[in-house]
Amino acid sequence: MSGNDQAVTAAVLVIGDEVLSGRTKDRNIGYIAEYLTAIGIDVREARVVPDVAGEIAEAVNALRARFAYVFTTGGIGPTHDDITADSIAQAFGIGIDVDPRAVAMMKARYSEADLTPARLRMARIPEGASLIENAVSGAPGFRVENVIVMAGVPKIMQAMLDAVAPTLEGGKPMLSQTRSGPIKEGDIAEALGTLQQRYPDTMMGSYPGYGDKGFHTSIVVRARDETLLAEAIGEVEKLIASAQAGR
Amino acid sequence: MSGNDQAVTAAVLVIGDEVLSGRTKDRNIGYIAEYLTAIGIDVREARVVPDVAGEIAEAVNALRARFAYVFTTGGIGPTHDDITADSIAQAFGIGIDVDPRAVAMMKARYSEADLTPARLRMARIPEGASLIENAVSGAPGFRVENVIVMAGVPKIMQAMLDAVAPTLEGGKPMLSQTRSGPIKEGDIAEALGTLQQRYPDTMMGSYPGYGDKGFHTSIVVRARDETLLAEAIGEVEKLIASAQAGR
Repeated sequence: MSGNDQAVTAAVLVIGDEVLSGRTKDRNIGYIAEYLTAIGIDVREARVVPDVAGEIAEAVNALRARFAYVFTTGGIGPTHDDITADSIAQAFGIGIDVDPRAVAMMKARYSEADLTPARLRMARIPEGASLIENAVSGAPGFRVENVIVMAGVPKIMQAMLDAVAPTLEGGKPMLSQTRSGPIKEGDIAEALGTLQQRYPDTMMGSYPGYGDKGFHTSIVVRARDETLLAEAIGEVEKLIASAQAGR
Repeated sequence: MSGNDQAVTAAVLVIGDEVLSGRTKDRNIGYIAEYLTAIGIDVREARVVPDVAGEIAEAVNALRARFAYVFTTGGIGPTHDDITADSIAQAFGIGIDVDPRAVAMMKARYSEADLTPARLRMARIPEGASLIENAVSGAPGFRVENVIVMAGVPKIMQAMLDAVAPTLEGGKPMLSQTRSGPIKEGDIAEALGTLQQRYPDTMMGSYPGYGDKGFHTSIVVRARDETLLAEAIGEVEKLIASAQAGR
């Protein structure tokens, strides 16, 4: 963890036709966002792109230039549509080949007979990359500069994120508190806008919901400073109480 | 529905800090992707951006230039952080004001007393936009050219999508079939790559999973032509059977 107050930023890039067709419902964006937020890294953008090398490379280059880290998921398996590693090499303009370190990791999991040419595709790693351990199924993820390349299967991605997390530089974590009430968002919207102006170093979000019991609204306040957060959340409590009393 | 074979394309743009912080887990991308696929529209990209006007406008402009439709979700509620409508107006370089048609829709749901200045923010609509009915809570979505702006709350977004769907031009729907077996992805990867080359007008995807019963893999074949799809899926069945027999 760095000691400074500056936010460390990140983007998430989900790679896969199956997400864009709706066949697979992505759960990785939400998981990574929550995980990184907790360790003080702000996710500023997420994208989902298809299994098309040019589009993967373009997205990687756009995002790595703007954010401290880019986390990709998907497309590092053994089949013909797994083209993430090659696309990353293309994005950086570097070579790619079967990496003996990756083969060694896979040999710990697969018999010689099972180390087919298709599986060896999973050992193709861009040159100069560091490897990310895969505690679930052996074939590693990897990192090139600020781009961290992980599997798409959630369980494997999560193991890789655990493996890479200690190597990341985090900012001061964003703290967050939530208060909710059985009120309509519109009942507190103006007062909340005023409150946000009074506390510019916090981020106030309002999240309306509608369920069996009718409308309710949650107010989330986020800040890096604990005292400031406590003060602002106190004002939010008053605001919700007054909205409830007014109805 | 148009009768031609060309794909009609779309992008999804999710707007909201709460998704990027992981507090809210997005379910709209998956829902919209599945819905559009079923009516013959191919989702080619999805993005999540924060509640920052410049970033929303930039993403809208990048996506609307490349795809037939852009579907946005989020940021059209009554609070200060709901800036999607203004950002869309900014993207198109057009004006925005309280729209009497939107006010009329809201009056059907809200009493005069409840039509606060904050709620009237939800009636701010870019000039020239057509409105999208909101069967759940009144305040409408809207459409400017090929950009369709919907709420973030899933239930409301889904109602808006139902309302707008009959006005969309769909391509020939992509058909899809799936075959699964208790095999490792690597066991069929090479044969599947060869099969994909033999059927270039299909898209073959391979989706490995790992559960209580060990590894399994699903092969999805997608094509716009029914006969071609049936033929290709027959080959996939043989491939899975042979991989199972070989283990």
